[in-house]
Amino acid sequence: MKPQTLKGFRDIAPEEALKRGRVLSLLKSVFKSYGFVPLETPTLEYAELLEGKYGTEGEKLLYSFKDRGGRDAALRYDLTVPLARYIAENKGKIVFPFKRYQIGSCFRAEKPQAGRYREFTQIDVDTVGVDSALADAEILAVLATSLQLLGVPKFEIRINDRTVFQDLSPASIRILDKMDKIGRTAVGEELKKAGFGQGVLKKIEKQQPTPRLKEIFSVLESFGIDKKFYRFDPFLARGLDYYTGMIYEITVPGASGSLSGGGRYDNLIGIFSGEKIPAVGGSFGLDRLTEFVPAETLQEIPFKPRVLVTVFSPEILSDSIALFDRIQGEGIESEIYLDPTAKLEKQLKYADRKEIPYAVIIGPQELKNKKVILRDLRNRTQQSVGIELLSKAISG
Amino acid sequence: MKPQTLKGFRDIAPEEALKRGRVLSLLKSVFKSYGFVPLETPTLEYAELLEGKYGTEGEKLLYSFKDRGGRDAALRYDLTVPLARYIAENKGKIVFPFKRYQIGSCFRAEKPQAGRYREFTQIDVDTVGVDSALADAEILAVLATSLQLLGVPKFEIRINDRTVFQDLSPASIRILDKMDKIGRTAVGEELKKAGFGQGVLKKIEKQQPTPRLKEIFSVLESFGIDKKFYRFDPFLARGLDYYTGMIYEITVPGASGSLSGGGRYDNLIGIFSGEKIPAVGGSFGLDRLTEFVPAETLQEIPFKPRVLVTVFSPEILSDSIALFDRIQGEGIESEIYLDPTAKLEKQLKYADRKEIPYAVIIGPQELKNKKVILRDLRNRTQQSVGIELLSKAISG
Repeated sequence: MKPQTLKGFRDIAPEEALKRGRVLSLLKSVFKSYGFVPLETPTLEYAELLEGKYGTEGEKLLYSFKDRGGRDAALRYDLTVPLARYIAENKGKIVFPFKRYQIGSCFRAEKPQAGRYREFTQIDVDTVGVDSALADAEILAVLATSLQLLGVPKFEIRINDRTVFQDLSPASIRILDKMDKIGRTAVGEELKKAGFGQGVLKKIEKQQPTPRLKEIFSVLESFGIDKKFYRFDPFLARGLDYYTGMIYEITVPGASGSLSGGGRYDNLIGIFSGEKIPAVGGSFGLDRLTEFVPAETLQEIPFKPRVLVTVFSPEILSDSIALFDRIQGEGIESEIYLDPTAKLEKQLKYADRKEIPYAVIIGPQELKNKKVILRDLRNRTQQSVGIELLSKAISG
Repeated sequence: MKPQTLKGFRDIAPEEALKRGRVLSLLKSVFKSYGFVPLETPTLEYAELLEGKYGTEGEKLLYSFKDRGGRDAALRYDLTVPLARYIAENKGKIVFPFKRYQIGSCFRAEKPQAGRYREFTQIDVDTVGVDSALADAEILAVLATSLQLLGVPKFEIRINDRTVFQDLSPASIRILDKMDKIGRTAVGEELKKAGFGQGVLKKIEKQQPTPRLKEIFSVLESFGIDKKFYRFDPFLARGLDYYTGMIYEITVPGASGSLSGGGRYDNLIGIFSGEKIPAVGGSFGLDRLTEFVPAETLQEIPFKPRVLVTVFSPEILSDSIALFDRIQGEGIESEIYLDPTAKLEKQLKYADRKEIPYAVIIGPQELKNKKVILRDLRNRTQQSVGIELLSKAISG
């Protein structure tokens, strides 16, 4: 049996996992500062709940199967539909407006391609139970603040209002949505081919922000979000059928694809709850997002051991452990080499490969003199240091 | 369509999710301080990789299905077998000893019962590539330190060595393993019924710690783990077939079931890699663990807004936002009410239900005087405060 990940899936190795952990912890701090609380819905849902929500193309990507009890189950495709199910199921207990964030794996059986996987981490913020420009703008402010805290230097929030497309057919909207990718000429041609006149294109080009969008822009200004980060884009359509009002996408100039997308969806929860409960939200994909976070933000990763405590021989193992305990206790991140029978050379090589800057050696002679050998692995020097002075020597 | 979670699955509401987040963040800090790094393996694996690893009973609980490409896939049952697959797949690139932690959902199609769900969060620490008492003991030390940091007041690590059972049949081992649950008399009777003599029971009762266990106990002492937290238990067997050496279980006196379990499994990775790579590890179940974490540990949850900034009317919304921004900027956790058209009464009721202690009201009169009304919602008093003195009034 060949050891391999399932086709389209991947492992996230420690270095990358540490980066992602750092990004998530910064995001959570922003979400919490705006009053969003975490919610966790299960990875599996009744297939019936997810079906018919993601369009014909999306539906094909849904992982569904019969569970052991013969129920039709599906892996979650996004975090929005499960939220809608949660709200409908618990509406009597929830205090509205309900502001939640959720971070979790979603699954789509996409054709495997570079950098795209069938399991990916989605990060969502949503406000449920209120229909106001303030709620719309707060979502955008949370996302903009997040990107600023992460140190993403340039990004653009393109904003539109779905109601602009009210009189247009879904087919023509799908073509207009390509403006960003293929440009005006190609959009015009595609519209023509599909039997739409140039009127559609011209109508959209002349479109002014709706009163609701004007309100949103005014709130964004009050929130102190710099105008350079957002703009009105009458061509932005967003694929998903369930949007009803404000829609947005965040892109990075010069990079293809989007960092984040979302909008207002006032009718989705009603499908489950029978009564209309307005909602607005947005989401980041962790893979895309981490790509754009600069190294300076990620360097503050909390773990990088500074010292390897070596073990001279099994007989004096307890002295090495005691020393390790002492260094740990002083708050210096350290490791003890776990095989007391390994040659010192092997232990030092391990420290080297893990880029641990210092190694401490304590043998019978050192024990007698209450000293240790402190080896600097970067410049290959070593010195004899009194045990009580060790932590000082390492720190500075 | 009734909005409901799939049978055997559940939502984790914000209050519980915050607690779990707090527990996980403390655990990660301990793991990192011992030099363990995060690894993430996918939720789905080839079914073939997981099959035959969990015994006849375990196998029945495996969620397996055909993916869209007709591959036999399965949801992960634990985090250990995927780790073994990862090591075998990447052994050329990994620096050994490799110490990793992983936190993730696992899936078992168990019969639904109170407090047991088909998706649950598992927390694993494992050390791969070294076979030493030091590595075994370090795993136990990490777990003990974690429980102490979480403030779990009483726990007991029962430790045994799988080699003790070398000459016994699996059937008799399964009966002996029940000692903790059903007691000596019942174990004796079951052994008799199954055709085993009393010799088996007596042999185990006379069992002394193996030399390896003695070494582990000595290292635990050097690590400074209090002896009251661990003991030798010759009856401990652990169900899983893949253990080869030290095995342990952590229980809380007076509570049924275990908090944590694990041990050494030197042959599992070899199934995938073709060469023997030793490993030892242990895991916590987050549900069980969180139950035993005292309220004092969980109270330090970072989010609890102190102030609701109300919105007097849509016309002066921007002034409320500016005030909200100011309070936020001073590091006071706050929220702004998201519906500017809602009556003040409704806004204050919201603060009440969310247990936010203060509300700030800013109307046209207050704006003119550069003052705000600060309402203490716990004792139903209010005062007029100058804007620049507001944060002081809230904090103190």
